[in-house]
Amino acid sequence: MKIEVVKDILDANEEWAKENRRFFDGAKLISINIMASPGAGKTSLIMGTLESIGSCAAVIEGDIASTIDAEKIGTLGVPVVQINTGGACHLDAAMIKKALERLDLKGLKYLFIENVGNLICPAEFNLGEHVRVIVASVPEGDDKPFKYPGIFSTAQAVVLNKWDTLSYFDFDFERFKRGIYSVNPEVPVFRVSCKTKEGLGDWIDWLKGLTY
Amino acid sequence: MKIEVVKDILDANEEWAKENRRFFDGAKLISINIMASPGAGKTSLIMGTLESIGSCAAVIEGDIASTIDAEKIGTLGVPVVQINTGGACHLDAAMIKKALERLDLKGLKYLFIENVGNLICPAEFNLGEHVRVIVASVPEGDDKPFKYPGIFSTAQAVVLNKWDTLSYFDFDFERFKRGIYSVNPEVPVFRVSCKTKEGLGDWIDWLKGLTY
Repeated sequence: MKIEVVKDILDANEEWAKENRRFFDGAKLISINIMASPGAGKTSLIMGTLESIGSCAAVIEGDIASTIDAEKIGTLGVPVVQINTGGACHLDAAMIKKALERLDLKGLKYLFIENVGNLICPAEFNLGEHVRVIVASVPEGDDKPFKYPGIFSTAQAVVLNKWDTLSYFDFDFERFKRGIYSVNPEVPVFRVSCKTKEGLGDWIDWLKGLTY
Repeated sequence: MKIEVVKDILDANEEWAKENRRFFDGAKLISINIMASPGAGKTSLIMGTLESIGSCAAVIEGDIASTIDAEKIGTLGVPVVQINTGGACHLDAAMIKKALERLDLKGLKYLFIENVGNLICPAEFNLGEHVRVIVASVPEGDDKPFKYPGIFSTAQAVVLNKWDTLSYFDFDFERFKRGIYSVNPEVPVFRVSCKTKEGLGDWIDWLKGLTY
């Protein structure tokens, strides 16, 4: 019988998260936990960002199953590790610790951690990251911050992807922002299209402005 | 301290699910558990279906927070109850049992249960439903069945929504089907657009063909 003591699990996760954070700080590596619905464009955002900032980053890819995303990232020649959670709905700090042992991070500036596609469970698990970024997308609709307030409340930045498809969908950007600001009033919201590259500059400037 | 014994929780859920199923069968009510990513179009599919089949259905709406979807459904004049899970990432059978007490189901033929937007956790929880339907959408990408095989393996039907946006996205329908069939070889896959109503007829014919 599998017994989970939820508080103990979260406490243990916090311990691993602290250890990861010490590692990131020691290595002067800015770590970014990227969370989103399935298909919002997490991998596309990471790829678009890597193409712009060059080879100063590594990537940890989290998925229930498959190595599709790690293979895509691998084409860019940056260090990448795929974590398959085997059913678990989020990454946790212990998974990240293990993945870090498999990455050569010397001299790098950024670590992107792509979480499992899920707007709920990943928010509960601190990975030790410096910043959390939520990727949303126009086709998902402008009501997502109202329906998933928890995850939006924890973000240091929100990236709204697929902005190029705006004319195709019934999406009110002001309503979307209202939903976010109701739980996270100061957070920057970037409109981008990873397909056309529109708007990626502002996001990358923000990223470059991150310091310890 | 919150202690969860996972096996006991799933066992208890199965008991409630059996009770729900007895209720559905007694009432001759076909119950449909609709699962999808956030923003794939669960509510739109339910609304498009209701507009076609008329007032012989009720709806249970599941969300972490907000009453946005229940309000939309309410405009069609069918019985609807909103469940707010308050953070939980899925509906469970006990929530459904409670919601049933708040619905007048006399003489109805269908009960649509819209699960929380999540491609992972809802698959674990039997609600007592007769059929499970997964809604996917073109903008999410054709790789979702490979990344979330668990939920696709449990479906009695898959509805691929936003088919009208195909020319806008890099989506290979054959690859999407291959992913589904690798875990669920016989399942019907319907291509629809809830916006243009294209393809809804086949889905509704399938629904009308459901019997005990």
